[in-house]
Amino acid sequence: MSRHTEPRRPLILNAFEGNTVGNVQQGMWAHPRDDRLGFGSLKHWLDRARRYEEARFDAVFFADVLGLYDTYRGSSAPAIENAVEFPAHDPLTLIPAMAAVTENLGFVVTASTSYEHPFANARRWSSLDHLTGGRVGWNIVTSYLPSAARNFGLTEQWSHDDRYDRAEEFLEISYKLWEKSWDEDAVVADIQRSVYAEADRIHAINHVGRTWSVAGPHLVEPSAQRTPLLFQAGTSGRGVQFAGKHAEVVFLGTNEAAGQLKARENIEAAAVAAGRNPEDVRLLGGLQVVVGKTHEQAQARLEEYQNYLSREGALAHWCGVSGRDLDHYDEDTVFEKGDTDHVQTQAKRFSVEGGNARTVGQLKQHFGTLGSYVQPIVGTPEEVVDEIERRAIDGRIDGFNVQPIVQPETFDDFIEHILPRLRERGLARESYGTSGLRERVFGSPRLPATHPAHQVSI
Amino acid sequence: MSRHTEPRRPLILNAFEGNTVGNVQQGMWAHPRDDRLGFGSLKHWLDRARRYEEARFDAVFFADVLGLYDTYRGSSAPAIENAVEFPAHDPLTLIPAMAAVTENLGFVVTASTSYEHPFANARRWSSLDHLTGGRVGWNIVTSYLPSAARNFGLTEQWSHDDRYDRAEEFLEISYKLWEKSWDEDAVVADIQRSVYAEADRIHAINHVGRTWSVAGPHLVEPSAQRTPLLFQAGTSGRGVQFAGKHAEVVFLGTNEAAGQLKARENIEAAAVAAGRNPEDVRLLGGLQVVVGKTHEQAQARLEEYQNYLSREGALAHWCGVSGRDLDHYDEDTVFEKGDTDHVQTQAKRFSVEGGNARTVGQLKQHFGTLGSYVQPIVGTPEEVVDEIERRAIDGRIDGFNVQPIVQPETFDDFIEHILPRLRERGLARESYGTSGLRERVFGSPRLPATHPAHQVSI
Repeated sequence: MSRHTEPRRPLILNAFEGNTVGNVQQGMWAHPRDDRLGFGSLKHWLDRARRYEEARFDAVFFADVLGLYDTYRGSSAPAIENAVEFPAHDPLTLIPAMAAVTENLGFVVTASTSYEHPFANARRWSSLDHLTGGRVGWNIVTSYLPSAARNFGLTEQWSHDDRYDRAEEFLEISYKLWEKSWDEDAVVADIQRSVYAEADRIHAINHVGRTWSVAGPHLVEPSAQRTPLLFQAGTSGRGVQFAGKHAEVVFLGTNEAAGQLKARENIEAAAVAAGRNPEDVRLLGGLQVVVGKTHEQAQARLEEYQNYLSREGALAHWCGVSGRDLDHYDEDTVFEKGDTDHVQTQAKRFSVEGGNARTVGQLKQHFGTLGSYVQPIVGTPEEVVDEIERRAIDGRIDGFNVQPIVQPETFDDFIEHILPRLRERGLARESYGTSGLRERVFGSPRLPATHPAHQVSI
Repeated sequence: MSRHTEPRRPLILNAFEGNTVGNVQQGMWAHPRDDRLGFGSLKHWLDRARRYEEARFDAVFFADVLGLYDTYRGSSAPAIENAVEFPAHDPLTLIPAMAAVTENLGFVVTASTSYEHPFANARRWSSLDHLTGGRVGWNIVTSYLPSAARNFGLTEQWSHDDRYDRAEEFLEISYKLWEKSWDEDAVVADIQRSVYAEADRIHAINHVGRTWSVAGPHLVEPSAQRTPLLFQAGTSGRGVQFAGKHAEVVFLGTNEAAGQLKARENIEAAAVAAGRNPEDVRLLGGLQVVVGKTHEQAQARLEEYQNYLSREGALAHWCGVSGRDLDHYDEDTVFEKGDTDHVQTQAKRFSVEGGNARTVGQLKQHFGTLGSYVQPIVGTPEEVVDEIERRAIDGRIDGFNVQPIVQPETFDDFIEHILPRLRERGLARESYGTSGLRERVFGSPRLPATHPAHQVSI
């Protein structure tokens, strides 16, 4: 069979989370079987970590934002009342705790190149990579919320392209610190001579750039992965170029096969243009499942979930992501020409996945249905697994971020009913094999020689 | 008995640590019984956490630096070779892991007002305070290493007083986020109405200051302590003023009774000037012990330790702290008039504690002895406990940061031989009582009404 009709390997499967009350499907925190009100406690996350490792998820993937979704109606009230990625506690603080009770589970966490400082950020990731023995991945974002910009001293957000320019320099600095500052044999820990490290094998980076000056050297010795596994989710033209150059795993903004194939083509082209091997990039889709013993039972459960969805929350979320307050547009407006890449992409996603919503009026109607974020797969375990396999093949997808509807119910269902069947078909790993995150995904703990991280010089 | 001749309560006892190979007594990492080469692993810190909690230490106190000690000889080589607070992994990453295996141990961690961003910093501490159930303390520093400044984009460090001006604004923003942004009853988590929080009880802070603009609101709901327990170690005139205004626990730069009494007078005066109750500030000294069955055995052990001390490391450390390269001074130079507060204080400390070293030549001689950092108490358990009690009474000290010489040996000795005897004398807690850090030290989880955190307005 050709490479196009068969998944090449077991799927990468991550549990999608947020250090928050409400994520993914807005309003579901109020479902009587949802446990996310406990998100502030250590026990909540230790239980989650053990559960995800027991199920052999590759990683838990943490989304994050640094501000409120206050675009819709120009108010933060809808996001606060409906807990739209709110509160937003720091997800990185969960990783060491979850690592303390697991051996193999990976941790992918969102951190922003717009609001972190590259020196502190690099130190933090390296420290975590040490503690976890190479189990961390960084979901690189440039942050899209204007409210986040205002929390970090800007009266106005940098433009989309400026954010990516800054991100380029941010990564250049990160690579210098992670890959170039310490020679592999710098640490000698020679007790006889009382020499911990050889000074001539540790190098200042003396970076002087447009936005940052960072002298170095890096303060952390080389960790298992040196550079954390690099995730990205860029969908705009510039985002794709960035992802193709830097990212090792890309979380796609669409679950529609044609869009995914197109995204692969673009990302692989960008990777090749940056001197990389297209095989060094993996693509993930989003995945939500609603399972029942019969198709009718699954459908009934979907409808029961539906009652808890918050239309206001979904609108607040979409308007924040797209940067457009739908309350300010005529109902028959169509987002297309003259809009930014990002808004077009967001609108297009809904026009494809959201029951062909073309106008603002149709979009607004569409919120308050579970399909408004990701179209869930609804059915018996066999039906769901068939559909997952079909999506993986048709979209040539390497894996999925499995997203919650009701927690922990959605994951319990996935673990109990779907994972064993995926394993039977060779679509999920039987065992972890190795605990290192990059090593599990790519067979080696370090970035390949063709990655641009190796091209920076100090 | 008068308040001056008797400790008022059981001593606060913290285990002093760093996420590094070499701290406190330079060179000791190379001692054959020292285990700090394992500092990069999770197991190392989980074992430490369990051990410190079993011993009922109030907290583990993490020092931290954001650059290399490269003042001495204008080179980073001495610090790299001798592991002088090097490598410097991020200590905050250890806290959630150590919290995951403990119930009551507190965590005090150093973070810099010069190089963190106040919004991100506040979010991180609040997230940790949630996870730990109110067990965190922040050791506020303005950072003294020029090398740290160069890692964060500055060609030259801000002046000492500028750093404190910035620290004032940093704390003002922190207080606004921690104490004012969320009303106590903001979170309603009303499942019936599907309302997570009442929008009119969560407030933007709209801070516009000299250095930062931060809109808010805080993204983290109120935690057990809201504001972490505030530690500080300022010794200069400006540092004392800052400590008196903000700090709840001050780590003093001297172990000499007259200096400690003077420091108390100054800090309490500054506290009163800021509208606070002098009883709301606790003072800690540093403490190192070398224990033997007989005095002679203890002395022999001290001498054995002495062989592993690194004079180069101690010089690199002192020159970094004081900002003066001793290699550039005439041997008969005396630091006094015309030097900054900080250098004078550092020099004075050595003139008092370091065998009356008055000149640069004498100072340099003095390094390479265990007394060059903190004068250890050497003797039988009874002798050591007598001396601790004497120091606590004479200097009116509320507790100690217990510092390692050889790890874990120093702490093992302290736990096995000293702590039980301190308990017999009522000088150490019998049990934790409460798990909250501020609650244990001050009887309440929240800052008192007179603290300046409550005086900020938004």
